[in-house]
Amino acid sequence: MLTLDTTRDMVNKALSNLVLKTQPAELYDPIRYTLSIGGKRLRPCMVIMGCNLFKDQVDEAIHPALAIEIFHNFTLLHDDIMDDSPIRRNQPTVHKQWNRNIAILSGDVMAFLAYGQLIQTRTDIINDLIHIFTRTAEGVCEGQQYDMNFESKCKVTEVEYLKMIELKTAVLIGASLKIGSVIGGASTSDAESMYAFGKNLGMAFQLQDDLLDVYGDPIIFGKTIGGDIVGNKKTYLLVKTVEMADEKMKEKIIDLLEDRNMEREEKIRSVKTIYDQYDIKQRTNEMVNNYFSKANSKLEEVRVEERRKQELRKLALSLLDREK
Amino acid sequence: MLTLDTTRDMVNKALSNLVLKTQPAELYDPIRYTLSIGGKRLRPCMVIMGCNLFKDQVDEAIHPALAIEIFHNFTLLHDDIMDDSPIRRNQPTVHKQWNRNIAILSGDVMAFLAYGQLIQTRTDIINDLIHIFTRTAEGVCEGQQYDMNFESKCKVTEVEYLKMIELKTAVLIGASLKIGSVIGGASTSDAESMYAFGKNLGMAFQLQDDLLDVYGDPIIFGKTIGGDIVGNKKTYLLVKTVEMADEKMKEKIIDLLEDRNMEREEKIRSVKTIYDQYDIKQRTNEMVNNYFSKANSKLEEVRVEERRKQELRKLALSLLDREK
Repeated sequence: MLTLDTTRDMVNKALSNLVLKTQPAELYDPIRYTLSIGGKRLRPCMVIMGCNLFKDQVDEAIHPALAIEIFHNFTLLHDDIMDDSPIRRNQPTVHKQWNRNIAILSGDVMAFLAYGQLIQTRTDIINDLIHIFTRTAEGVCEGQQYDMNFESKCKVTEVEYLKMIELKTAVLIGASLKIGSVIGGASTSDAESMYAFGKNLGMAFQLQDDLLDVYGDPIIFGKTIGGDIVGNKKTYLLVKTVEMADEKMKEKIIDLLEDRNMEREEKIRSVKTIYDQYDIKQRTNEMVNNYFSKANSKLEEVRVEERRKQELRKLALSLLDREK
Repeated sequence: MLTLDTTRDMVNKALSNLVLKTQPAELYDPIRYTLSIGGKRLRPCMVIMGCNLFKDQVDEAIHPALAIEIFHNFTLLHDDIMDDSPIRRNQPTVHKQWNRNIAILSGDVMAFLAYGQLIQTRTDIINDLIHIFTRTAEGVCEGQQYDMNFESKCKVTEVEYLKMIELKTAVLIGASLKIGSVIGGASTSDAESMYAFGKNLGMAFQLQDDLLDVYGDPIIFGKTIGGDIVGNKKTYLLVKTVEMADEKMKEKIIDLLEDRNMEREEKIRSVKTIYDQYDIKQRTNEMVNNYFSKANSKLEEVRVEERRKQELRKLALSLLDREK
């Protein structure tokens, strides 16, 4: 069975072999730039590993894997414009390095390039793949819209928050594994189990990301701690706390969020104190574990030999093993 | 045979039956708004009429026709952000009516919705349709990028200009007819002839649009005359004039374009005087006629009974009959 590392090498090799046009340079240079910066390539690896679960030969999964990676980077590129983020993966974002219009348009092309890659596989399954991919892409856009709406919304419920991360993050992980499985020849029910495995894993991953922003080890997590708190980002921790808080505490939290004069470290400390009061670390960890075990039980249901599942189990574990 | 009017009724009916999600409203309301504002629906009509050329039954062409209309409106929506245009078809543009982020994201969803419609046809041709559509969509983005580049470019050659309008306008008209033809069961060579018919027709259409901006009857053309001149837009007329002008005249033109104090009507008159000096109306008309007859000779090549071609001939004529 292919390991995550081997699969990642395959993805990186395929990406470096990807022939993009050169003209107009303003359109294709930003795409080359975005795709070369890297990242963990988790989603395309999941396409290939999803295929490998059912079949040793994974060649037919390579181009669809690139489709997912190109699509994922397209969403990051457009999200960065919308959030006006200057930096992504330690490099200037496309709209900063070039300009906003170039970022809009090169992102648009990436959406089409993704379809161009997706259909480079067995013709008998293209229809299925396009269906899965298109529905997922719409969902990811919906997730981003909900996330943007939350910025100006006073009250976000736990249910709304979970729906948002499901759309923005989890469905693409589910779709990556499902697309791989379909290419690998999985039965409909196995492909659905793989989708559910990925979706639940994605939920666990995103909730843990929220958790690590506050409680993670900055050296291992690779990000400054408390960024979400300082940015008043509506994370699971904040949404859940506000939902549990009484009116007085809600006001206190709102005052804290709206206080523009408070020192960074003091703000982080104050919010953390409230979180601790509501056992939010433990509660979020429970959610992470729930989703993680749902994910595992979905993988359990897939009717292939246990030994074939080992690499996906490792991948799932490594995804959640970032805080140690 | 279906007439343009009948076909347009079919398109409008299909559009009004199109079920779009309602939530998140910020994502789907702008799409509903954009698609409801209208326009001539020429491209989707071409899909259906392209199909009808080869086959009486056109049901299988309806959803792909919607795909083309949704895609076309997606490009307008994003172009309007990039050009910061406040008005489209006498209505506020999406980024003005809502905001820029909503316009980016609802445009993105439209690209995916287009694929969702495109694949609602016979499964045996989906692969072909996705190929044609994806390559065309990339081309349209390239055309928009070239067009944006021209704004800051001092010298644009005739060849560069023709390449730009080919990508930005003509290939989508070609693709609309080709997609329809493929659905109608056209042979590969007939489908290619239809593509070339549409592409040449698109070139003629765009060049005539440039011409009408200066020499059209404002009442019939439906736009204020001279808008391109006042906006310093690099049209075929300007590009061709600069290419023919000697150094002294080139300087005069540049001075005219850069003069911010000149009255609107005076500027239009001055530029028009130069155009007249170079017979630009006649030259552009010749180009229009050349492309138009190339288009017609391509339609000629298609191996179906002459009577089946009548409605497409009428459509082609009506496209170029806007000045009378």
